[in-house]
Amino acid sequence: MVLKMQQEPYKIYLEENEMPKSWHNVRAAMKEKPEPFIHPGTRQPCVKAELLPVFCEDLVDQELNVTDEYISIPDEILSFYKMFRPSPLVRAYCLEKELDTPAKIYYKFEGNNTSGSHKLNSAAAQVYYAKKQGLTHLTTETGAGQWGSALSMACAYYGVDLTVYMVKISGEQKPYRKVLMQTYGANVILSPSDTTDVGKKILAEHPDTGGSLGCAISEAIETAVKSQNCRYVLGSVLNHVLLHQSVVGLETKIAMDKYGIAPDVIVGCAGGGSNLGGLISPFMADKINGKNNIRFVAIEPASCPSLTRGKYALDFGDTGQTTPLIKMYTLGSGFLPSPNHAGGLRYHGMSPIISKLYDDGYIEAKSYVQSDVFEAAQKFARSEGILPAPESAHAIKGAFDEALKCKETGEAKTILFGLTGTGYFDMSAYQSFNEGKMSDYVPTDEDLQKGFDTLPGC
Amino acid sequence: MVLKMQQEPYKIYLEENEMPKSWHNVRAAMKEKPEPFIHPGTRQPCVKAELLPVFCEDLVDQELNVTDEYISIPDEILSFYKMFRPSPLVRAYCLEKELDTPAKIYYKFEGNNTSGSHKLNSAAAQVYYAKKQGLTHLTTETGAGQWGSALSMACAYYGVDLTVYMVKISGEQKPYRKVLMQTYGANVILSPSDTTDVGKKILAEHPDTGGSLGCAISEAIETAVKSQNCRYVLGSVLNHVLLHQSVVGLETKIAMDKYGIAPDVIVGCAGGGSNLGGLISPFMADKINGKNNIRFVAIEPASCPSLTRGKYALDFGDTGQTTPLIKMYTLGSGFLPSPNHAGGLRYHGMSPIISKLYDDGYIEAKSYVQSDVFEAAQKFARSEGILPAPESAHAIKGAFDEALKCKETGEAKTILFGLTGTGYFDMSAYQSFNEGKMSDYVPTDEDLQKGFDTLPGC
Repeated sequence: MVLKMQQEPYKIYLEENEMPKSWHNVRAAMKEKPEPFIHPGTRQPCVKAELLPVFCEDLVDQELNVTDEYISIPDEILSFYKMFRPSPLVRAYCLEKELDTPAKIYYKFEGNNTSGSHKLNSAAAQVYYAKKQGLTHLTTETGAGQWGSALSMACAYYGVDLTVYMVKISGEQKPYRKVLMQTYGANVILSPSDTTDVGKKILAEHPDTGGSLGCAISEAIETAVKSQNCRYVLGSVLNHVLLHQSVVGLETKIAMDKYGIAPDVIVGCAGGGSNLGGLISPFMADKINGKNNIRFVAIEPASCPSLTRGKYALDFGDTGQTTPLIKMYTLGSGFLPSPNHAGGLRYHGMSPIISKLYDDGYIEAKSYVQSDVFEAAQKFARSEGILPAPESAHAIKGAFDEALKCKETGEAKTILFGLTGTGYFDMSAYQSFNEGKMSDYVPTDEDLQKGFDTLPGC
Repeated sequence: MVLKMQQEPYKIYLEENEMPKSWHNVRAAMKEKPEPFIHPGTRQPCVKAELLPVFCEDLVDQELNVTDEYISIPDEILSFYKMFRPSPLVRAYCLEKELDTPAKIYYKFEGNNTSGSHKLNSAAAQVYYAKKQGLTHLTTETGAGQWGSALSMACAYYGVDLTVYMVKISGEQKPYRKVLMQTYGANVILSPSDTTDVGKKILAEHPDTGGSLGCAISEAIETAVKSQNCRYVLGSVLNHVLLHQSVVGLETKIAMDKYGIAPDVIVGCAGGGSNLGGLISPFMADKINGKNNIRFVAIEPASCPSLTRGKYALDFGDTGQTTPLIKMYTLGSGFLPSPNHAGGLRYHGMSPIISKLYDDGYIEAKSYVQSDVFEAAQKFARSEGILPAPESAHAIKGAFDEALKCKETGEAKTILFGLTGTGYFDMSAYQSFNEGKMSDYVPTDEDLQKGFDTLPGC
């Protein structure tokens, strides 16, 4: 006789045959769906044909699919996933001891692959569909460099050319990210650049800008639509990216169900929203259906507070205002974030799925200043032995605060957070923290207003 | 009914309860033992009391133990191991396809922890024994920075102070390694330094030297013996380090036995010899006992060829000539290796265990120049999605050649190699390879003679 609940190890690795075979599309479970993309000219919902010049066809289908709750993962992608998945679900025994909390803390660690983050989950999928469509070239942007690294790996695996527009300030903070992508064969261009019209325009207006994800997206899209046999791919925000990232949440849920673990609160960092969306996906569907009462907490940097201080409005996804309009929490596509070290969270908007769930009250949001986040990162590194990416450290700080609340109340809650990546390429940020030179910039209301003034106001 | 041979996944992770509970001491299986350490003054074998001022007592016991084939791993270390072990044994399906070889290629991947290498296996053990002995401070050296990073993590975990002498050229090639160690709380000093007598002497004689492991060891030992409640710890070469690293080989053997995999050849890189010694340990014992006919291949850089071009002689372990004399393959303690990017392989000597096994014909050895190694590293990264450390890439190149031999002969041999770590902190090396600026320096016989001239000649 096999016992239903197995004894719980430090790290739970699923067997290969327990890995999810489908992605989870949380939109199918949502009672009210996120608003569709709006064409900025016609002000009508975008149709498939309008998206095809920019995106791969299968990804457009996934992007527009709000009805199928489960979408099969092709065998070729499952094979790729087996190269670096399943990822471990870790019980943070050492951290619990360090924080002296009755809470049980778990984290799903997505940094155990060479790209160093969860981004590979979507890169593996997107390049597969591009290859299947016969494309030979892709363009993208990268902020912290995690997405660019992951996509470079995936493009090397499938044999597809890649041009990466890397946010200039990130390229300067992390020169070796660039070398990593080049080692995988990618062509890396610092953005804003003079290789595109939109890059030239931004440089003319803001010659000293360190760039932003919004700028880099504009450049990558422009290059994709002007090139032969080429499409643009994006590492966050979009619905199909959250869909691919649901593999994180599904694995977590399978592992937790296997060992009888029921989270009370799930914490994730949120930049474009893909890791948070992926982590919470199946848990959120259950919450919507009244099957659990989990609290979901999104953590963002105080320097780029789209959820906590942004507006829920139709906005462009990029600074160059070339994308369809997206209903999301946003600081305005003209918001140029400060050079916070968590480059992956430096985006003016937020996934429309996360935005809608937040607006409907399913998700809470909090923001932290940088040095508080790095203090948590350092404590985590020293007790759990994993050096977190600055982005991931936002989730750590959020989990710390939940655990310390439990210490006050004496409640033994179960806290799950997403540890999205490692900080190997973020040592200049740690150096600035170690030397006490870290900025805790928070935008003033006036700063934010400048961004809001760029909203299309429809 | 349970099938004995389970279906083989891409990555084999043992269950926690399958993890080894003891280390394997290959010396117990060796028919002729490695020679004991010799006191340079008395020319007699060193006794325990002579080693205690430098090393922790339990480690000295392990160092001198040539009789017990299995030595229990204390529970506290097993708990630490569970933070980052078991490590995966990976079937390199993509690489096999890329090389178009009938060979089956496996690698044991030790880079899946934040220190990024196998070094944590011994760090976790050594700091535990130091803490148990009531020590409050440790000193060590680091070359590539892998050992220093691992030890910093272990010291943070146990709450023990640490001073790391980092080989100067490595510190310059990898500035962020230093920041990583500092983030874990270590005091990092570039070697040769003016903090020790031996450092001052070396600097006076070779003001432009990039340093070497041998120099850094001298400085760390000097500081340890001059400090209160402090000992020196070493990340390779010594018998107890190979003992701790046997966890790698034991896990590999358990996983292979579980799935009915029998290696024909095992390849590892060899600097000080600890990863190779750990990986082969249980397989070698079986070979000695006639239970298998595995070929063992050590790969070293052509720039520091201790096995392939060194002498089997009594020599000091450090440049300052302060250690006991060790019978090993050596280039002479005065050999100052060129600034090859595989800093972890830049050591003049070789583990006495590996040296003895090599001398007795149980191990083969090969050397490669740097750019051949990086070419293999890049190909591996692009097909398997893991960016290898330059040290590990030597084993990859060795495995490639074995696989290509199989392609010629049509034999479907089973090749196992040790993938000891990741190259996240080695991007300047990859950059130099990408830009075609990599040196393929090989020492002349005259260069080697200068090192041999420093042998104590006993």
